[in-house]
Amino acid sequence: MTDNSLPLVISAPEPRTLDLIFTPAARAELHRTYRVVEADPDHIAGLGDDVLAQARYIVGQPPLSAETLARMPALRAILNVESNLINNMPYEVLFARGIHVVTTGQVFAEPVAELGLAMALNLGRGVIDADLDFREGRELWGGEGNASARLLSGSEIGIVGFGDLGRALNRVLSGFRARIRVFDPWLPPSLLREAGTEPASLSDVLTMSDFVFVVASVTSDNKGFLGADAFASMRRGAAFILLSRADVVDFPALMNAVGSGHIVAASDVYPEEPLPLDHPVRRLKGFVRSAHRAGALDVAFKKMGDMVLEDMALMDRGLPPMRCKRAERETVSRMRSKPVSVN
Amino acid sequence: MTDNSLPLVISAPEPRTLDLIFTPAARAELHRTYRVVEADPDHIAGLGDDVLAQARYIVGQPPLSAETLARMPALRAILNVESNLINNMPYEVLFARGIHVVTTGQVFAEPVAELGLAMALNLGRGVIDADLDFREGRELWGGEGNASARLLSGSEIGIVGFGDLGRALNRVLSGFRARIRVFDPWLPPSLLREAGTEPASLSDVLTMSDFVFVVASVTSDNKGFLGADAFASMRRGAAFILLSRADVVDFPALMNAVGSGHIVAASDVYPEEPLPLDHPVRRLKGFVRSAHRAGALDVAFKKMGDMVLEDMALMDRGLPPMRCKRAERETVSRMRSKPVSVN
Amino acid sequence: MTDNSLPLVISAPEPRTLDLIFTPAARAELHRTYRVVEADPDHIAGLGDDVLAQARYIVGQPPLSAETLARMPALRAILNVESNLINNMPYEVLFARGIHVVTTGQVFAEPVAELGLAMALNLGRGVIDADLDFREGRELWGGEGNASARLLSGSEIGIVGFGDLGRALNRVLSGFRARIRVFDPWLPPSLLREAGTEPASLSDVLTMSDFVFVVASVTSDNKGFLGADAFASMRRGAAFILLSRADVVDFPALMNAVGSGHIVAASDVYPEEPLPLDHPVRRLKGFVRSAHRAGALDVAFKKMGDMVLEDMALMDRGLPPMRCKRAERETVSRMRSKPVSVN
Amino acid sequence: MTDNSLPLVISAPEPRTLDLIFTPAARAELHRTYRVVEADPDHIAGLGDDVLAQARYIVGQPPLSAETLARMPALRAILNVESNLINNMPYEVLFARGIHVVTTGQVFAEPVAELGLAMALNLGRGVIDADLDFREGRELWGGEGNASARLLSGSEIGIVGFGDLGRALNRVLSGFRARIRVFDPWLPPSLLREAGTEPASLSDVLTMSDFVFVVASVTSDNKGFLGADAFASMRRGAAFILLSRADVVDFPALMNAVGSGHIVAASDVYPEEPLPLDHPVRRLKGFVRSAHRAGALDVAFKKMGDMVLEDMALMDRGLPPMRCKRAERETVSRMRSKPVSVN
Repeated sequence: MTDNSLPLVISAPEPRTLDLIFTPAARAELHRTYRVVEADPDHIAGLGDDVLAQARYIVGQPPLSAETLARMPALRAILNVESNLINNMPYEVLFARGIHVVTTGQVFAEPVAELGLAMALNLGRGVIDADLDFREGRELWGGEGNASARLLSGSEIGIVGFGDLGRALNRVLSGFRARIRVFDPWLPPSLLREAGTEPASLSDVLTMSDFVFVVASVTSDNKGFLGADAFASMRRGAAFILLSRADVVDFPALMNAVGSGHIVAASDVYPEEPLPLDHPVRRLKGFVRSAHRAGALDVAFKKMGDMVLEDMALMDRGLPPMRCKRAERETVSRMRSKPVSVN
Repeated sequence: MTDNSLPLVISAPEPRTLDLIFTPAARAELHRTYRVVEADPDHIAGLGDDVLAQARYIVGQPPLSAETLARMPALRAILNVESNLINNMPYEVLFARGIHVVTTGQVFAEPVAELGLAMALNLGRGVIDADLDFREGRELWGGEGNASARLLSGSEIGIVGFGDLGRALNRVLSGFRARIRVFDPWLPPSLLREAGTEPASLSDVLTMSDFVFVVASVTSDNKGFLGADAFASMRRGAAFILLSRADVVDFPALMNAVGSGHIVAASDVYPEEPLPLDHPVRRLKGFVRSAHRAGALDVAFKKMGDMVLEDMALMDRGLPPMRCKRAERETVSRMRSKPVSVN
Repeated sequence: MTDNSLPLVISAPEPRTLDLIFTPAARAELHRTYRVVEADPDHIAGLGDDVLAQARYIVGQPPLSAETLARMPALRAILNVESNLINNMPYEVLFARGIHVVTTGQVFAEPVAELGLAMALNLGRGVIDADLDFREGRELWGGEGNASARLLSGSEIGIVGFGDLGRALNRVLSGFRARIRVFDPWLPPSLLREAGTEPASLSDVLTMSDFVFVVASVTSDNKGFLGADAFASMRRGAAFILLSRADVVDFPALMNAVGSGHIVAASDVYPEEPLPLDHPVRRLKGFVRSAHRAGALDVAFKKMGDMVLEDMALMDRGLPPMRCKRAERETVSRMRSKPVSVN
Repeated sequence: MTDNSLPLVISAPEPRTLDLIFTPAARAELHRTYRVVEADPDHIAGLGDDVLAQARYIVGQPPLSAETLARMPALRAILNVESNLINNMPYEVLFARGIHVVTTGQVFAEPVAELGLAMALNLGRGVIDADLDFREGRELWGGEGNASARLLSGSEIGIVGFGDLGRALNRVLSGFRARIRVFDPWLPPSLLREAGTEPASLSDVLTMSDFVFVVASVTSDNKGFLGADAFASMRRGAAFILLSRADVVDFPALMNAVGSGHIVAASDVYPEEPLPLDHPVRRLKGFVRSAHRAGALDVAFKKMGDMVLEDMALMDRGLPPMRCKRAERETVSRMRSKPVSVN
């Protein structure tokens, strides 16, 4: 029995599913609080006028035309449970009407930061090859095995991009007494200072760091902005850890810089995913590989549902959403160019 | 030209060397401040009476008889640059006379803590096997590869032993919002609470943790105190990370617990070092191996010299040493049972 | 000589002045980067069409009609250098057009938090009366003077309102190992948890705290929401510190609760400002008084100019403002009811 | 009924009492675990040979002769529940025998740090005089009252002495993003760095700070080491906060420096206590007075008992005490010169 007096939610979370993003308890709360209409994302317009007229929220990012939106006078927010924004709805209309478009990619920040830290520690200490050598009986004992070892503690660290992911990285790095420089042209320097980091140019981040973490989103502006020159400018032996999108780097140049022994590197993302079996990065020494699994943990997906519920609860009371990240008029078109979700 | 008015230091740092433990600058300061007599550790008694009579410090832990000590009225401290205390001098005489015996093993705390964290993150996310699979072309992409993944953030963590190493671990874990329980029977509970941890029984640490770090020294009391029952009591899928000495665990029992799939584990130390080529831990699934290389970094050894200089400077001014760790009358005999240095 | 190619800023910061909110260096940067037209706030419409057509920013919150706004097609933001939002412009038009209205009241958060902490410590230890008694020769020495003393360290603390001010308070309280509960109905609970606090009901905050800080803004909803019942529900001897607006409390009820000895209190704000000379709060025992001076420090005003410059720099590059706080469509009308600025 | 098999404790805590230093629960534990013989501190020698022979601990610091000590072969520790060490026992004998002498003054660190912070905030903002003015109807509103106001946040802070008190201060200052310099000639610089502070000379601490906290103990070496030159070297308008002993400063010089308007100051301690009614510091403008009440809180005294119990429990198990502070052979004679306890 549905209670028609409950606020109406159109559910179109594809490619996610409600079961992926809600725990059973959260799912129960969703249905207790809202009238949930599950819809085919490709046919939102086909929902009856009644449903459209009453819909307060859409969970998902189905294609929406201006005409369909015009039939939805009660709509307060589109809660996108991917990380990217697809160019499939008239954002200007949404902004003008004050309909929030929010994303939940923040849930991946903590898992990605932990994997990034693991990569940095592994590169600094040669952990993976040491385990392999041990398996094969050619391990080096004690100091013998540490010729090129380096610590994070007291090191100089650079972070490119200081959104949710950069902040999560900064947090897991807080016990290392490191000097952390951040390049993020979308943020005011004082905000970076308040987070305990030093605002820096991209060049300073590259040339003055022992570890460089790249967590910047791809935008229409920054495709391939880290190329051969960038890698050449890094300290010899420094570590480069790529956690956002392969498109922000010139991947062959990165492989060259590692292959030449100038730097070491790790990546969770690749120019093609999956990657051809004969791709040279598979065997590259000095490189740590992860198959786009940094963020895609069940516990992360389940947080999406929690965030959606928290923000709908605020909006139900006439307040703005504070938990998810809102799409911004100024940047939505740049962010829309992101080809896939963070995970 | 030596300046005979300088305080006299007997140098017998074997198996270390002065070059290993002093940076060039620190070494220069040592020689600028002290008259350094390099001695064969096995023949301290053979040094002239002049040298013995004037010696203020010994750097190293050479064998010393009561007779030799009686010839050294000016001796203030023995600065041990290993981590263990060998039963080769009459400690009671030293304590009664107020001659400090200090150790510098603290230098290894930070490197060991970082490797321990790397191991925990690697076990939690299957990082090493994922890289190997990627090399071999059988990697799983995205969420497919994360079926058993778990986060440190928000997890429950247990630490067995809260000396320098436990404290360093606690520090690198500070960014993870984890609940940290500590078992250390040598410390008052309130001190553990002040460090932001929860004092706990060994049983609670084992049964209530997602990650257990063992950093307790071997003493005459605790050999093999972690055996089959301990591992069986752990949460299914929990991670056990051994960083101190193999002797504190029943190693075959640990391997069984991992082999059966009940827990995952990592170790830097082994019952024999080096380990026979056919030792089964080399191929054990669910186990991360490191060949006693957690602490032995050049940067750590160099800190030993700095610590020695700082404490000699205090003692030169009539103050007690505050940088190195002092051997304690009550525990020196238990600690002496440690067969080798931490690194 | 003005460079007409520079972006145009209309300056109408009254009741502030440019000299109050900009350091000389910041003021120089303002004039180097922008063409600044100083305007009478009451006659913005009287500025020439040229100026209006080119104006990119307004610094201040002068009255604006829909007609005037229609003549300003290039307007990107109104940078309000007070803390309140006056109902003197058509906000719906601004929101629809995507013109940001931002406030800079954040600059007061740190000074107010410090004064709030001073008040709490003074109440906890009777610092002010102890100094007065000392002046008068009737001081009590040592433990004699500490009968009712209490520590912040390890105490239970409640915060009502977790905007910039609440966050600043939480930060200055971070060294006290206190348990901090927060009531803020405008924020999702998970955000409060991420800040290291416990989300709580107003009732729990009142009844379970040794110190209660009120930093909630007055809105159209919460006038006088803390009255006799609230104070009666507090722990005997607890401290109530009012830092936002007198209108959120029933002030006579607060005085009664203090007068009866049930609680102690401090306030920076009053029902009337200035306060009549015969107002009973002037002589109330157990009350610490501050004459609305918590935030109004020169160093705070000067930060306003820095924030304005940082956000205009972002907007100049087509990015959204990230430094100042944006007025929200949902809450602007409630916030507008605030009668005066925070300071 | 006493159980004669329990370890024996001689109780002579004067001028404290067991009721002052133990909570009822702790007192019950004391009597459950130990056979407590309450003794007149001036007649320990008069206790029977049985009692002396069995005594494992003394709580208090009664006068002890070498002869009496010789009758106490089982003695492990003297647990001093004051803060000072009186020259009333043969310390060399105690050190030679390995009998620990421990002090519990650490309990005052947190209360003193909180009062010190209150003083700094009060001086920085003129809080006390502002409240007095308000009572008298001559308060200045808003910015008018803040002409000389200054923040701790972002300021430069100096700490003289980094024992328990200095560390507690450093902790309560942790939320202020201040730059903290420390002068402590008894500690190695690297230890100060690890605490997040900058080791500095006394001169740098004085001349480069906005707030100077003095928490150094008086020793035989440092009587009056802060005099007219020291105060003259401070920044104009800086605040000087004295929390340890009046003897470390030239008090008239301090009053002059405040009287002339060069600095502001606060003190919890005085050359004479109690102070004559006509002492000029009572009416000195720019000075905040506290009558030696910084530490003497009941909650602090009660912690003494907890510390004593924790350390006796360790020693019962053959371990060294880790909770209280041990007297040191090198410094006991210097510390003995302290005329009275911290509180």
